[in-house]
This record gives sequence, structure tokens and C-alpha cells, in this order.
Amino acid sequence: MSVARIAVVAGDGIGTEVTAEARKVIDAVLPGVDYNEYDLGARLYNRTGEVLPGAIQDELAGHDAILLGAIGDPSVPPGVLERGLLLKLRFEFDQYVNLRPSKLWPGTTSPLAGVKPGEIDMVVVREGTEGLYVGAGGVLHRDTPAEIATEESLNTRHGVERVVRDAFARAQRRDRRHVTLVHKTNVLTHAGNLWSRTFAAVAAEFPEVTTEYQHIDAASMFMVSNPQRFDVVVTDNLFGDILTDIAAAVTGGIGMAASGSVNPERTYPSTFEPVHGSAPDIAGKGIADPAAAILSAALLLEHLGRHDEARRVTEAVAAHVASRTPGAALRTAEVGDLVAAAV
Amino acid sequence: MSVARIAVVAGDGIGTEVTAEARKVIDAVLPGVDYNEYDLGARLYNRTGEVLPGAIQDELAGHDAILLGAIGDPSVPPGVLERGLLLKLRFEFDQYVNLRPSKLWPGTTSPLAGVKPGEIDMVVVREGTEGLYVGAGGVLHRDTPAEIATEESLNTRHGVERVVRDAFARAQRRDRRHVTLVHKTNVLTHAGNLWSRTFAAVAAEFPEVTTEYQHIDAASMFMVSNPQRFDVVVTDNLFGDILTDIAAAVTGGIGMAASGSVNPERTYPSTFEPVHGSAPDIAGKGIADPAAAILSAALLLEHLGRHDEARRVTEAVAAHVASRTPGAALRTAEVGDLVAAAV
Ligand SMILES: CC(C)[C@H](C(=O)O)[C@@H](O)C(=O)O
Ligand SMILES: CC(C)[C@H](C(=O)O)[C@@H](O)C(=O)O
Repeated sequence: MSVARIAVVAGDGIGTEVTAEARKVIDAVLPGVDYNEYDLGARLYNRTGEVLPGAIQDELAGHDAILLGAIGDPSVPPGVLERGLLLKLRFEFDQYVNLRPSKLWPGTTSPLAGVKPGEIDMVVVREGTEGLYVGAGGVLHRDTPAEIATEESLNTRHGVERVVRDAFARAQRRDRRHVTLVHKTNVLTHAGNLWSRTFAAVAAEFPEVTTEYQHIDAASMFMVSNPQRFDVVVTDNLFGDILTDIAAAVTGGIGMAASGSVNPERTYPSTFEPVHGSAPDIAGKGIADPAAAILSAALLLEHLGRHDEARRVTEAVAAHVASRTPGAALRTAEVGDLVAAAV
Repeated sequence: MSVARIAVVAGDGIGTEVTAEARKVIDAVLPGVDYNEYDLGARLYNRTGEVLPGAIQDELAGHDAILLGAIGDPSVPPGVLERGLLLKLRFEFDQYVNLRPSKLWPGTTSPLAGVKPGEIDMVVVREGTEGLYVGAGGVLHRDTPAEIATEESLNTRHGVERVVRDAFARAQRRDRRHVTLVHKTNVLTHAGNLWSRTFAAVAAEFPEVTTEYQHIDAASMFMVSNPQRFDVVVTDNLFGDILTDIAAAVTGGIGMAASGSVNPERTYPSTFEPVHGSAPDIAGKGIADPAAAILSAALLLEHLGRHDEARRVTEAVAAHVASRTPGAALRTAEVGDLVAAAV
């Protein structure tokens, strides 16, 4: 019997290159994984017009997790692959915990003056299946002066409560045990109120976790002026999209940014992928940095309950990054080899 | 006859202190302004439960502009004054151009390493009367497991076109003549499409202005990694709220952040106010920095067509800031005196 069944969607551009290294590292730390490769992304779309065929989706559902590289290519209209694959997986597989750790690692440099490695260490728990991402909305009187377009944010007690509880459970396992709720309750009063009430109710179940509320505009400012203050952040789908990119920026860009779109119950597979894109400009050159993809593999291992393996992968990446010679960039495969050898 | 009729809503906390200095500077540069003071904010609300009585609103409507300090006090439930006064004025007075310049001034320090004064100089033109700020939404099955809460973003061709045109007209008058549209077209497809089509149509009227599109998550990241690239940014109400706070953060915080909620046709008065809040913790001590309030007065003068006066005020603030002795903070009134003497 295999130790785990992982669907590999390496995708476009550098996606294939960095995913190969992530697999290399998984194999080094956990031999015996069964992989199935799925050629989704720009190639399939350009050949067939399909993004995620129903039969493939059914096959993906039979896996323990999905390891994704990156999708997107200039040949495909913007949004098609993102909505048809990434968002579709989040919704179809009920990946309601969108997990984005941000850490300023030794060996990396923050664009923020005076912020030192180790000082920033947060995880944003972004809701992944609701809010403005549900696609509710429409257009009326298109291309006339009377045109209107709407977008609707849908939020359920069910959806909010489960992601908030997940955030508290994570905070409970961390050193600082602090959760910040980010929303815009002073303007989005209906959804804001639901989030606030639910947050307060769940907080009562975790007496050891301290809490705080911030408006999204203030939180965005603090991400720049004082990112050290954040431990666990829980927020809605769109605010989380924005906040995690600021968090990535202040921790030195998306080079180390890993993410998981997680279905915590494991009723469906969760997807793990680097935050960076397919970078067509450097694709095929073997120079992409696989660190974020390998860290995403660590999140995958963690999700599968392989805590020790996850820790070893993360530590190996951290050690590699800390010991890099500035200016002497390694090739993609060399980084994978180094980390695989070190786990 | 008075040169201008300005309604003064000094408001709460340090609002009264910084507004006094803004008036001082206006009087120095443009004698003969008629002021009417309106005591709105926490005091009125706590005394009467009212935020903006209809009769007062009618009186405000008769002014050329509104000079606002700051509102908000711990004694008032969050959101009440913001929605009842600030947002109400924006909607009732059709202040559809929410103007937020961000500049890294000589004498100020960015939290970003290596970014030097003069390098960041942008203006965010944020839509002020539509989007998620309209208050459309509701709650169903409150406090039950079946609860849902919605928020609706409403966008009209009318509303989008006029603010986009304003942004292009501003860009046309600037050195770099560049406009960046920020939205999330890959997810908010309906509203995103309206914004994109409208942006393209208006761009055709301004052949000298170069354009660019960025998703809100990418733009938020660039605000940190490369804020120098922005000249004029046009975006919707909520994205603008977030982006302008990041812009304020990377230009050294809200100490110099001025804003205008502008009705360009001057059918209604426009509101000018510092971005900072009422800061109850330092209120009454005479130590608040009035720079942002004075720069807001400069935006007011500009709006009234007093270009030369506006320029003199801005330059006087800039000169003051550039010559400050680090560590030797002046008192609120001293700053006002200095700037008033210099205009
Ligand atoms: C590609 C896009 C649809 C996606 C999102 O908005 O969620 C991306 O920005 C992300 O954060 O994973
Ligand atoms: C106070 C609040 C309602 C307001 C907004 O969200 O617009 C503020 O953040 C601003 O940017 O002026």
C-alpha cells in the first residue's frame, strides 16, 4: 500500500520545474508516495478549450492531496484558468481554509528597514469558499449609459464559524496564541456583524487565546508599519487575498510564500501550491527558485499528519536559505538536490 | 463679499486642535474667508443621539467646502459617526472623487529600506459613492446556524466613467502622465469588466496618458516592493480604502496624509480632512501634528481654484517638514504659526 496518493498538477511555465523539486524532496523524506500526474493548465485549454474536465475532477477527488505548481500563460485569457481550476478546486473540494504562513527567514531580507529575520512570523487563515468569490452578481444594460454591474458577498454562519474555529485551533498550538480578526465592520455592517459575533462566540471556546480586531485598511497599514504584531490572522476571502500579498511583500516577496487550500476534514483533497505564478519569462531556463514549492510540500505533509517529515523539510529549506551565498544563485535542480539531501 | 464660505467641522479629539491650525494657514494665504462652525461628532451624538441633523445638512450644502478635523470617540459605538457623517456626506453631496495624494516628503522617512524622499509621488483617485459602500445587503436567520449575511457592490457606468475620467484628467496634468487601474477582474468579473471597458473607453480620450492594469493583490504588493512605479491610481471604493492606507504607510504613516472627498462639479461642497483619526490618547495636549490637516486645507484651496495659494501652503508645509530638527517636536500651534508665517 502506498503511504499517500498525491495528484500532481505541475501546470504552466516554471510550475513544472519547481514541482519536480518539491516531489524530489517529498520522496527523500517520505518514500513510497504514489503520484498521478495531470496535465492541466494552458496546454489542455489551448488544445481542447477545457480547464477541468469532470472525469479528471472525479479522479482528483480520489487523492489525499494535490501538489500544484503554477498555472497561467499569456496565450490564455486572464481569469480563465484561475477561475476554472484554482477557484473551482477550492469550491468543489470545500477547501475553506486558505492557509498562508508568512515568515521572515534568516537569509532573506525584508524591504522594511530594520526588520530582522525571525521577527515576522504569522499565518493568515483566509476563508476560501465564500464572500465575494462565489461569483454572485451580474450586469444590466451592458454598454449603455444605464449599465450597472453587481458583485455580491455571501457569508454564512456555517462558513464563517468553521474557518474562525480553525484559526483559533491553530493559534492555540502556537507560542503567542493570538488571533486577529480582520474585516471592515464599520462599512460592511451585515457581513461584519456576522463575522464579529461568530468570532466572539468561538473565542469563548479558547480562553487561552488572546484576540484583537482590526479594520482591513488599518491591518494593511500595520502589515507595513508593524508586521511583528501579527500571529494568526483570520479574515474573509477577498481581504485575505490582499493581506497575504502584503505579508508576502514584507517578508521579502513571493520567493518563500507557500500556501494551502485546505479541507481540514479531508473529505476532499487539499491543494498545496506556491503563491508565485508561472513566470513565463524565466520558464524553461532551470533558474526558478523552488523554495516556495518545497515549503508548500511541507504544508502538504503537515496536512497529511506527517508532522515530523513536514518539520524536516521546512528546516532543510530554512537551512539552505540561511546559508546561501549572496549573488551566487543556484539552479532549480541544485536547490532541490540540496534540500532533498538535507532532510 | 467673502472670498469663500467654508463650513468647519472640527470634530473630536485632536480634530479641533489641528483644524485651528489649518484655518490659521488658510487665513494667512487667503484673507477674507467666511467660516461657519458646526459642532458635529461625539459631543452632539452623546447629547442628542443625532449625527447629522437634516437642517445642518442643508446649511452645509450652502458652503463652498467643508474643512473637517477628525471624528470618533470611545464613547460612541464604532461606525456610527463614520457612517452617519463621513460616508453620509460623501453620498449626499455626491463626492465621487475621493482624492488621496501620497508623497515621500524630504524630512520624512519611509519604513521601506533605501527609498528616498521624492521617489514616491502618487495620487489615488478612489471612487466615493458606489461599490460595497452603498450599504446594500442584509442578514437572514440571525443567530441561528442557518444565518447568512450579504453585502452587495453596486457599480454603474455613470459612476465609474466619471471617476475614471477625473483620474485621467489629473494624470494629464502631471509629469509622468500614467494611470493604473486597480481591480480584481479575474474574480469580480461583472464589476471588473465594467471598470475595464470603461477605463479603455476613457483612455482613448487621453492619448498622451499611458495606462496599466493591476489586480488589487498585486498592487498591494507593489505598494511595498515598488511604490515608485505609481503615478495616478484609479480604483473602486473599497480597494481605494485599502490601497491608500498602504500608500500612507510606505510614505511614513498618516502624519502627512491629506484627503479630499470631492464633488468636482461643485454642485455640492467637498470635504477635506486629514486621514488620521481623533487620537483621543493625545487630545487636549497641544502636541498633535497639524501637517496633514494643513495639507488638506491646501487640497481645499486647490479645489476652489486657488492654485497659487494651494501651492504656497503645500510648499510651506514641505519646507517646515524638511527643516524639522529630529527629536525636537514642536507644539501644534507652533507648527501652524510657522507655516502661516511662511506662506
Ligand atoms: C488567481 C486568483 C484567482 C487567486 C485569488 O484571488 O484567490 C490568487 O490571487 C490567490 O491568492 O490564490
Ligand atoms: C471611517 C471609514 C468609514 C472610512 C472609509 O472606509 O472610507 C475611512 O477608512 C476612510 O478611508 O476615509
